[in-house]
Amino acid sequence: MSRINGQVRIVGAGLLGTSLGLALVKKGIDVIISDTSRASQALAIDYGAGRSAQSGDDPVLTVVCVPPDYTAGVVAAELAAFPNAIVTDVASVKQSVLHELQQSGIDISNYVGSHPMAGRERSGAVAGRADLFIARPWVVVPHQSSNSVGVDLVTDLALEVGSIPTLMEPIEHDHAVAAVSHVPQLVSSLLAARLLSTSAQEISLAGQGLRDTTRIAASDPGLWVQILSANAGQVAPVLIDLAADLNSVIAALTDINAGGSLTTISRTIEAGNRGVERIPGKHGGGYTNYATVVAMIDDKPGELARLLTEIGQIGINLEDLKLEHSPGAQIGLVELSVLPEAEAKLVEDLTGLGWRLA
Amino acid sequence: MSRINGQVRIVGAGLLGTSLGLALVKKGIDVIISDTSRASQALAIDYGAGRSAQSGDDPVLTVVCVPPDYTAGVVAAELAAFPNAIVTDVASVKQSVLHELQQSGIDISNYVGSHPMAGRERSGAVAGRADLFIARPWVVVPHQSSNSVGVDLVTDLALEVGSIPTLMEPIEHDHAVAAVSHVPQLVSSLLAARLLSTSAQEISLAGQGLRDTTRIAASDPGLWVQILSANAGQVAPVLIDLAADLNSVIAALTDINAGGSLTTISRTIEAGNRGVERIPGKHGGGYTNYATVVAMIDDKPGELARLLTEIGQIGINLEDLKLEHSPGAQIGLVELSVLPEAEAKLVEDLTGLGWRLA
Repeated sequence: MSRINGQVRIVGAGLLGTSLGLALVKKGIDVIISDTSRASQALAIDYGAGRSAQSGDDPVLTVVCVPPDYTAGVVAAELAAFPNAIVTDVASVKQSVLHELQQSGIDISNYVGSHPMAGRERSGAVAGRADLFIARPWVVVPHQSSNSVGVDLVTDLALEVGSIPTLMEPIEHDHAVAAVSHVPQLVSSLLAARLLSTSAQEISLAGQGLRDTTRIAASDPGLWVQILSANAGQVAPVLIDLAADLNSVIAALTDINAGGSLTTISRTIEAGNRGVERIPGKHGGGYTNYATVVAMIDDKPGELARLLTEIGQIGINLEDLKLEHSPGAQIGLVELSVLPEAEAKLVEDLTGLGWRLA
Repeated sequence: MSRINGQVRIVGAGLLGTSLGLALVKKGIDVIISDTSRASQALAIDYGAGRSAQSGDDPVLTVVCVPPDYTAGVVAAELAAFPNAIVTDVASVKQSVLHELQQSGIDISNYVGSHPMAGRERSGAVAGRADLFIARPWVVVPHQSSNSVGVDLVTDLALEVGSIPTLMEPIEHDHAVAAVSHVPQLVSSLLAARLLSTSAQEISLAGQGLRDTTRIAASDPGLWVQILSANAGQVAPVLIDLAADLNSVIAALTDINAGGSLTTISRTIEAGNRGVERIPGKHGGGYTNYATVVAMIDDKPGELARLLTEIGQIGINLEDLKLEHSPGAQIGLVELSVLPEAEAKLVEDLTGLGWRLA
């Protein structure tokens, strides 16, 4: 039994639109998928993400899955074309879309914004997956005149595809994603850009810390210009605060023997300690200090599986697992995170089974 | 057959000293381990990381493994106590140690600096592991009057414990670690500190990007004050360049409609793209764009092992693997990185075996 009774119309056959179509078709819902690019639309339909529009379509819900810059215009067109349908969108900024709609003067009581926190490093219909939204937060963002039918329907949409719906005001949403997504993106990009003036030999000393802090610096510039410019008002103040802290650190390092310099540096690292502790861990709980055990494996197919099979037989659940890269070596280091109380047994049993621990 | 003929004396029984002792004892080398803390020394000896000093000791090599602030003083004392021994250290900054030694006016031809790029999130003798150095870069840092015997012996030490030796000048080393380690540490701390003014509900939207960029913000303030203050001269200029870029971004975001603002943001993300591409991938090769396939597993012991066993049977080698945290969900997402040419087969075979791919 589906939570959604009626047709769902998806506008935009990129990664999110196609994935949403695949997920809803799987649930037996009649999905109409449309894109201004005939090729993208045909590909999404071939994939099984829906059917093309036809006269007499009467959707209960339209989901606008186009880039942020085009979202408000398409939402307005959909509200006009299907006055009985609820319209939502998936843009990763919410205030700018809403303001543009409000300024147009049209009735937007059938509009409810939303933002599924799902994505992949690849884009386009080809990357679409029915399970993209599973276990991801999906922010539902009503405005003052959104009707309750719309809020319920968008919440049902999130639940239907396996997401975890969270209700937020537009400004709350934009403030939140500035902090947890947009600022980290810019900071990672700025940090990675420093490597352009670092020699190859110097970069060869890179460890996991550099890799982790710069991974998202590989993101798409075109998309991020749209996101960051649409949320500039929320991102700039966070960066201004960060710049103030950065300037304090620079002043301290530039005159390291001055009174207070060491305190400034110590307080910076300590504030980071407290900040990172606020990030929730697995299963929605608070930050957990897992115990980590590092095992060495030969870098060939099946070795990691053999290790994990034996850990499974020991009966210990892994909370996290990371493969560490080892430039120049043909050996892999596997960082196993477990609950602290499981560490001693894991070490003892793995050692007993002949695994080398680092 | 060991590359090192003679006694090795280790001063400082923390994580690095104890790990080094364990590694060398395993190779049959006579290791003397010493610490100003009797308890730490006794623990390291109990662990099997060496024996206590006795009259008549005649080391060929002394390795000073004390915190950066104490390194030069201990190196000088060792050079005086054992005039026939080569002395090295493992401090993560090299110019400040050398300058302090040069200013003391003693003969330092037997001194060769070094820096094994190895560590763990835990510290102390208890965290010591014989295999800590395997597959890690070990920077050997001679100075103008270092003798060649010393350079060879420290290189042999690195090889003996499984590290990959790299020769660098002191300033090269300090410039390199500023870029790949010290600046990322400060930037991660500054970014994580912003979360102190973010609400718990907002942080609940955190994805893998925030986790990756802030992981090293959990590092020890006491140690980092020593490292950063000792390398302030190399770290500050990089941060000043980063601050200039950051100010450009802030100016662009603050007046997003001004001419050039979008270009500034686009160039920032693009520069990050090019920077991150310079980080070497696994096996010492250049940056590789692996294909990633995301599989879903139930969050219970043995599921990950079962998945990896089947991947091993398919015959595909994993280049990287990451477990993704899913706040609020009891399902795990496993990101599998493989060579691009292996992706299609992996997707087809895993799907055929009944795995759900995201």
